[in-house]
Amino acid sequence: MTTNFYAPPSAFRGSRVVLPEDEGRHVRSVLRTRTGDEIVVVDGEGGWHRVTIDHLSSEQVVGMVQETRRNVGEPDVHLTVGFGLLTKRSRFETFVEKAVELGVRRIVPLHTAHTETDTFRYDRTRNVMIAALKQCRRSWLPELAKPKTLASLLDASEADHRLVCHGSEDAPSVFEALDGGAEARILTLVGPEGGFSAAEVEEAVGAGCTPVSLGPRRLRAETAGIATATAVLMHCE
Amino acid sequence: MTTNFYAPPSAFRGSRVVLPEDEGRHVRSVLRTRTGDEIVVVDGEGGWHRVTIDHLSSEQVVGMVQETRRNVGEPDVHLTVGFGLLTKRSRFETFVEKAVELGVRRIVPLHTAHTETDTFRYDRTRNVMIAALKQCRRSWLPELAKPKTLASLLDASEADHRLVCHGSEDAPSVFEALDGGAEARILTLVGPEGGFSAAEVEEAVGAGCTPVSLGPRRLRAETAGIATATAVLMHCE
Repeated sequence: MTTNFYAPPSAFRGSRVVLPEDEGRHVRSVLRTRTGDEIVVVDGEGGWHRVTIDHLSSEQVVGMVQETRRNVGEPDVHLTVGFGLLTKRSRFETFVEKAVELGVRRIVPLHTAHTETDTFRYDRTRNVMIAALKQCRRSWLPELAKPKTLASLLDASEADHRLVCHGSEDAPSVFEALDGGAEARILTLVGPEGGFSAAEVEEAVGAGCTPVSLGPRRLRAETAGIATATAVLMHCE
Repeated sequence: MTTNFYAPPSAFRGSRVVLPEDEGRHVRSVLRTRTGDEIVVVDGEGGWHRVTIDHLSSEQVVGMVQETRRNVGEPDVHLTVGFGLLTKRSRFETFVEKAVELGVRRIVPLHTAHTETDTFRYDRTRNVMIAALKQCRRSWLPELAKPKTLASLLDASEADHRLVCHGSEDAPSVFEALDGGAEARILTLVGPEGGFSAAEVEEAVGAGCTPVSLGPRRLRAETAGIATATAVLMHCE
């Protein structure tokens, strides 16, 4: 299976692109690419570029852009997921990887009442996202925010439609809550293990969020995040 | 967060239940439960039992069943997922854990054209499923089949509705394919990394499967499995 490569917009100069060191090493040693070979490079800001290898040395890999397209592999809807920080980093990273694959556009780690950790490895998490970006062949690298409180996410959000995942079984499903058509910008909130506190759900509802149910089984936090993103994106796509 | 306990039907005698050794140890040492305390024990075959601790020693934990309900936390639809074996065991186990939480009733590991491994740790995988069963509070432990070929799964399947996940973007979505109401028994097929071969997709279609698309991004195998299960169960529930 071929994979895309990633180079940020700053790596492009006119029709030339200089691959970041890691990516260059991958092109050279793993793929054994030669001058003239074709690869796809995405810039993480919607740009998808068909590139031929122009220059290949132990220090640098330079390509020539042959064709550029915009927003390849991207959904129309702009989905932000606010996700409670988890003590188990591997579970947080599972969510992040799947969120990128599924088409989420922004991930906001949340400090919440039931969050039991203060540590968040920003660069490591972003590297998980870059690997997923390349693998799934989309062209936007979702924005990874610095961890925030629920209040500061809600205050700054520009979402037309807001959902908060909540244990109560009598709440509507994601589909019911989104009925009435595809919204341009959606925000969904998913708590950590143990969920949001009652006060947090109230705060979210006060800021325009509709509580939604994910069914009668108690989902782990990362499963709830993946299921919600799947439901919103499948509903809108 | 309280968790349910698991004891197979053979552990029940009249209104008494003897907890399996692991579960007994958890009750005793982790939860520090005392005689008279109440726990929930599920038998993995639809039985949900409210139980008081009757006898508690270093050898044995015995409970008295106070109340029994059937199919607590279970969806109406019986969903089987045939899932290509993966080289990375942790990714297979991520799928299995999430499938249990989401409400899948049967998991069939598949030997396929693009499967690159022959090893499958049955007991280890089943233990992942039991942990998820207890955590998510459902009452059926999904059946875990021994690895099969696609042909033998298709031959023996009694599903009313059959889907095969397929890369092609012009295929209908899961929702479109299931339109026309909730089916009693559904089978979905998800390939390993690299997907099903063209011959396998043809074989599945020949056996009544509708090819479905999961959208324009290339999902990892376990993400495809989780997304399909989410879509089918949310559609039917």
